[in-house]
Amino acid sequence: MPDIINLGFLGCGNIGGGVYHLLMDMHDEILKRQNIDIRIKRALVKSIAEARNDVPTAIMTENADDVLTDPDIQIVCEFMGGEQPAASFMQRALANGKTVVTANKMALALNWSALAATAKSTNAGLYYEASVGGVIPVIRSLTVSLDADEIDEVMGIVNGTTNYILTQMAQKGSSYGDVLAEAQRLGLAEPNPAADVEGYDAAYKLSILSSIAFHTHVPYAKIHREGITGVSPEDITYGREMGYTLKLLAIGKRTGDSIEVRVHPTFLPNDHSLARVDGTLNAIFNHGKYCQDMMLEGRGAGDKPTASAICGDILYAAKHLSMPLAPSFNNTDEPEAHISFTDNWICRYFIRLDAADTPGVLSSVASAFAARSISIASILQRPSENGLAQIILITHEANEQSVQDALSSLDPATVQVKSMIRVEA
Amino acid sequence: MPDIINLGFLGCGNIGGGVYHLLMDMHDEILKRQNIDIRIKRALVKSIAEARNDVPTAIMTENADDVLTDPDIQIVCEFMGGEQPAASFMQRALANGKTVVTANKMALALNWSALAATAKSTNAGLYYEASVGGVIPVIRSLTVSLDADEIDEVMGIVNGTTNYILTQMAQKGSSYGDVLAEAQRLGLAEPNPAADVEGYDAAYKLSILSSIAFHTHVPYAKIHREGITGVSPEDITYGREMGYTLKLLAIGKRTGDSIEVRVHPTFLPNDHSLARVDGTLNAIFNHGKYCQDMMLEGRGAGDKPTASAICGDILYAAKHLSMPLAPSFNNTDEPEAHISFTDNWICRYFIRLDAADTPGVLSSVASAFAARSISIASILQRPSENGLAQIILITHEANEQSVQDALSSLDPATVQVKSMIRVEA
Repeated sequence: MPDIINLGFLGCGNIGGGVYHLLMDMHDEILKRQNIDIRIKRALVKSIAEARNDVPTAIMTENADDVLTDPDIQIVCEFMGGEQPAASFMQRALANGKTVVTANKMALALNWSALAATAKSTNAGLYYEASVGGVIPVIRSLTVSLDADEIDEVMGIVNGTTNYILTQMAQKGSSYGDVLAEAQRLGLAEPNPAADVEGYDAAYKLSILSSIAFHTHVPYAKIHREGITGVSPEDITYGREMGYTLKLLAIGKRTGDSIEVRVHPTFLPNDHSLARVDGTLNAIFNHGKYCQDMMLEGRGAGDKPTASAICGDILYAAKHLSMPLAPSFNNTDEPEAHISFTDNWICRYFIRLDAADTPGVLSSVASAFAARSISIASILQRPSENGLAQIILITHEANEQSVQDALSSLDPATVQVKSMIRVEA
Repeated sequence: MPDIINLGFLGCGNIGGGVYHLLMDMHDEILKRQNIDIRIKRALVKSIAEARNDVPTAIMTENADDVLTDPDIQIVCEFMGGEQPAASFMQRALANGKTVVTANKMALALNWSALAATAKSTNAGLYYEASVGGVIPVIRSLTVSLDADEIDEVMGIVNGTTNYILTQMAQKGSSYGDVLAEAQRLGLAEPNPAADVEGYDAAYKLSILSSIAFHTHVPYAKIHREGITGVSPEDITYGREMGYTLKLLAIGKRTGDSIEVRVHPTFLPNDHSLARVDGTLNAIFNHGKYCQDMMLEGRGAGDKPTASAICGDILYAAKHLSMPLAPSFNNTDEPEAHISFTDNWICRYFIRLDAADTPGVLSSVASAFAARSISIASILQRPSENGLAQIILITHEANEQSVQDALSSLDPATVQVKSMIRVEA
């Protein structure tokens, strides 16, 4: 006799519809392979009258209790997006002992400790593979495959919209605004693009990723976040001339008990594995003490890839209902006391300056850096136009704070800082 | 109270030593994170007197029974390599109800059905993440994360030695023999390199990979296997001129109930994700109905990365001793009756010919292809030397058999087939 597993959906838009259709399409195959009979019993929607996606209205409800309190429903799949009411619904499902599967990075990142505590208290499963990197199996890789390793670095292209915009800017030399407008026209960026282009989405994902990679809670609030709205085509072009590709990266590093977590535009050497991950693709690069370098690449969004990841979680959850060892939620609610978070990380820096084309200006720049022990790895100066010379510097490794200090010390009457972009790897 | 898990090792060379040292190094961290106290109770070696790797001789034994029949040992880790006695030892361990963790692709591929049947009969776990792609979590991704999906293609660079040789040949223009000799000097190729360069190693791995990807047993004997010993620097150079990079790929494709499995040198477009996986790196590219394209990349060998993958399996096994749902061993012993294996696949072909520089020769070549409905996508002819013209053709998609027929039909007095290399993606 097969195991019958009853699912309840919270939300049934693009993602919920995609999961519904995958489970219908693969139902008999899953039954044959796994001896599991997956049934979708209830789906919470805002309005049954406005429901889409060819999901039968017979299973729909506008009352969350029909999903959250139905004793037949073992697994609750949350597809609402946004922090609330998704987080409180997940809390209630877990409190009722139901396993939860979600792709909601925002609700998860902002309510990590509370959700984990409730899951532990009722021994319920909590799965979220699709919350970071879509179909890329990075959550399972970190929590299971690399469980015996010591990860010291995660670095990811985890937002397809911004990667599409940066790729287009690089390939066409277009401005940020023009490419954004086109991405919006193509449905690749939201009418209000802030969550993507300001790096919020990537920061939620980095909170999740670094918490599991580093085995300690990394609160969202600790993440340094910069988006791509200030990126100019000139930076991309100069970077390329010097051998670098620009990406919006989510970066987490742990050295001993010190953790740095940051989302910002980043130059990578052209031959770095992440540098050629283009368009809407996502990829996550890890480094660990034993595994060394590893990269996982795939579709970070789209209803089918997202459904694949969610249904992988659903099947795993179905097999582990009695033993939901699931995620590495041995993270403490707050970061452990010995952990510190630093904003004064070390990396290399790409700096573009407009300098008055008069004697002594380059010397003043050089001495501002030298005074803070920042050494310059390469320099590119372009002939002046309108009496202004463009100077591009790439430093050797330096402290963030020293670089910020050096740039603040420059005399704005003769030197303007046009951009400062961090360089990794 | 932590769970105490007692391990027994079969073999304690490079890999076993690497696992031992990782488990010692990470013991307290694993205890803290997982509440599991991992202990290595016994290690079978050929000769205690000749043991290496700083593993204490006190745990060593020369008697396999000390590992296979010790009731305290819950997990047997096989690090012997080679088919026998590794396979029969694993059989005995499984028959005794012990979970087995192995990295031995040869023993596993050649004894898949028997090992799976024994594991099922005693409800013992059988884990083999490190058998394909080293630390790359491809086994877990296919068996767990993509469990609800329908994979139709796996394509992998799964042998670091041959990838190193092809990369060096491409970068230096050196001959196969010269690069092989250097790889042997550096310890990257065995004194007898046949297992790697003839594609046996890749074929064992492909048998495992395609069995789990396609949810049916894909016997090693069904795999078409060609190595890299016939690859010339000229092919690599001409391929590059035409936009292609040469890799030894393990390819599995499933269309309906038809499966093709093959290991051979393959040209990939330069912008394919696998094309820039260089040196000893491994990578596996999947395509599925829902997940679409996905690629996993990392270290395929080396004691530390291999130890990381094995210890991920050990921890997973330790948590699942009572419920070893482990691998997708719902594959039947023999491939199901409705499955067929084809040698007459469809792909594109790179063909290099030496042709007599006389009128009518190109026409005879063209008509041999046209007669079999093979159309030519691009052609490159070099001025003749010594009365011989070099002609390089790349076909559109064609049947293997038609191409073989066309090449056999050419008159060897005027046209010599120097190479025929399949082109994918």
